[in-house]
Amino acid sequence: MKTSPANKYLEDYLKKTDPIFEKYFQYKIKEAERIGQIPAELLQKFSQIARKGKKIRGFLVVLGYELAGGKNKKEILDTSLFIELIHAGLLVHDDVQDRDIIRRGLPTIHHQYEKVGNKFRLGSLSKHYGESMAINIGASAYFLALDKLLSSKFPAERLIGVGKLYAKYVSRTTYGQILDTSNIFIKNANQEELLNILKYKTAEYTGVFPLLAGATLAGLKDKKKLSALRKYGLYLGWAFQIQDDILGTFGDEKKLGKSVGIDIAEGKVTLLALHLIKHGTKEQKKLFKDLLGKKKINRKDVINVQNTFKKAGSYNYVVNLGWEYVKKGRKIIPQITKDKKMTKILDSFISYMMERTL
Amino acid sequence: MKTSPANKYLEDYLKKTDPIFEKYFQYKIKEAERIGQIPAELLQKFSQIARKGKKIRGFLVVLGYELAGGKNKKEILDTSLFIELIHAGLLVHDDVQDRDIIRRGLPTIHHQYEKVGNKFRLGSLSKHYGESMAINIGASAYFLALDKLLSSKFPAERLIGVGKLYAKYVSRTTYGQILDTSNIFIKNANQEELLNILKYKTAEYTGVFPLLAGATLAGLKDKKKLSALRKYGLYLGWAFQIQDDILGTFGDEKKLGKSVGIDIAEGKVTLLALHLIKHGTKEQKKLFKDLLGKKKINRKDVINVQNTFKKAGSYNYVVNLGWEYVKKGRKIIPQITKDKKMTKILDSFISYMMERTL
Repeated sequence: MKTSPANKYLEDYLKKTDPIFEKYFQYKIKEAERIGQIPAELLQKFSQIARKGKKIRGFLVVLGYELAGGKNKKEILDTSLFIELIHAGLLVHDDVQDRDIIRRGLPTIHHQYEKVGNKFRLGSLSKHYGESMAINIGASAYFLALDKLLSSKFPAERLIGVGKLYAKYVSRTTYGQILDTSNIFIKNANQEELLNILKYKTAEYTGVFPLLAGATLAGLKDKKKLSALRKYGLYLGWAFQIQDDILGTFGDEKKLGKSVGIDIAEGKVTLLALHLIKHGTKEQKKLFKDLLGKKKINRKDVINVQNTFKKAGSYNYVVNLGWEYVKKGRKIIPQITKDKKMTKILDSFISYMMERTL
Repeated sequence: MKTSPANKYLEDYLKKTDPIFEKYFQYKIKEAERIGQIPAELLQKFSQIARKGKKIRGFLVVLGYELAGGKNKKEILDTSLFIELIHAGLLVHDDVQDRDIIRRGLPTIHHQYEKVGNKFRLGSLSKHYGESMAINIGASAYFLALDKLLSSKFPAERLIGVGKLYAKYVSRTTYGQILDTSNIFIKNANQEELLNILKYKTAEYTGVFPLLAGATLAGLKDKKKLSALRKYGLYLGWAFQIQDDILGTFGDEKKLGKSVGIDIAEGKVTLLALHLIKHGTKEQKKLFKDLLGKKKINRKDVINVQNTFKKAGSYNYVVNLGWEYVKKGRKIIPQITKDKKMTKILDSFISYMMERTL
């Protein structure tokens, strides 16, 4: 794969924010130590996962800020990390629900503490203990994020604006997650319903929320420009989630840092599955249905299902769908900016959503 | 039990806020419907539990506001409900961790959705499905609370002040919860450690947070008065949690609306247990240890353990400890107010924490 310029922007953002995030956690872990050793250790484990993120959302906060003419680079870099705390908290809760055991190359929180439970011979309670710890630290992350946001030096009115965006888009994320978890029940799900779930579960908080948050911190009030950012962000978020689903079945586990094939083990109706069920041959459908809900998906199963998705045209169909969103998003860019450099960033970044391999 | 004047104040608060809360949820449920039927139904079930609360914390927000000279009664009544949303969210997450099946006389959220899972023949996944739904709606509650707070009409600076208090005290609640959940591991726990857990897990967010939030919304900046409110609130919160533990073993299940004896089934080291282990006879300790961790605690077990706590003096010891906090809190009142009516409210309210039977 050729390296996208988006990669360079992200790397630059990571280089600038990594030391800030590290220092932030050091301080917060010390604070937690005053309450107890166990919460401090848990926060430490959480920070390892949180710090390993691609930080797409944090970068988009800065981008939204700059697109709206914001100039306080130092403050926005620091503040933008609030969204990475929210994101990491959502992942911890999501991993419990999806029963994932690996995240960003590390064992998930609930999995780590299940092991602690085993060490203390909690027996069948170990799993429950792990999940309880994950529920708690995931929630802590939401509150730490709130503190990070409200402690920044931007004017009070703007902070309240971003706080409201936080409440709006992340409550919708939980509603989307509720739909996603209940996905197993949906009979005859259609593509529109599925795209609706992806919108609320991921696309809005990944694309719309950070861009609007950044623009709000810069004081942008121009409704047309805000609306254009919202549209671009939604297409970007959708492309992100579509590629996420593709990587969930076709990705490289090592690169990705999470298990591949788990959607199938979970019995989830994804866009890939939906296409196959509609357009696959009898044989292809049978192979897929036999795997659905199988407790352990092995390497051979994954390769089988990959080939089936490819032969049935499902893979191409979903990849094209993702690129359609990229195209739609690209068309919005002139409404956001006329600046050449900014146009290039917006252009390469939305493509990167489909190009990325991790 | 004689009726405390505190009851009258609480009833008055409930009478005024019940219709506001009902209308609020109607609106929010409609909003959720636009995203999907399942999240709307889940929010509806959550609202039934949230609305049935005693609303001690909401009342304390109004009290803190009035003690600081706030005059916008209508706005503070409405805004104060934000804290009841947080509280209800914490309870939903807590019930998953404690595996409680009844809360405020209703089946807990995770228990309700475990049943839904069974109906859809999810088999062994039903329990996991119920817990996932509870994780999500508990988190939704935190974000709805944030929206409720930031949408109120108080000046921006004050809202940010309360938002920071929210982040501070509720993240400490999650740390306290982490300690509490890990309580099973604590060998040779002493009373000081246990009181520390109770402080972070409950006392601060029950007593300190609402009073300071109310005072902040009224614009109070007098550090001495804020410090007095903090101290009074902490003693009040401690007394609340001590009585909560007492009711957890000695309460009337019907009145209480939750299961009695679950602390013992959970194997938790409570203040009652700690006293018994230190001061009980060999026989008393044996009876208690035999029950610890027993999967099903029946009515006879509860009566046995009640008698044991009473005979060993543990019951009296813990009741006295609670009243000690009430006394300490009372001594702070003159630093908060000289007003006779307000003094009476503060006095009766902190006593009510130990007098209450639900």
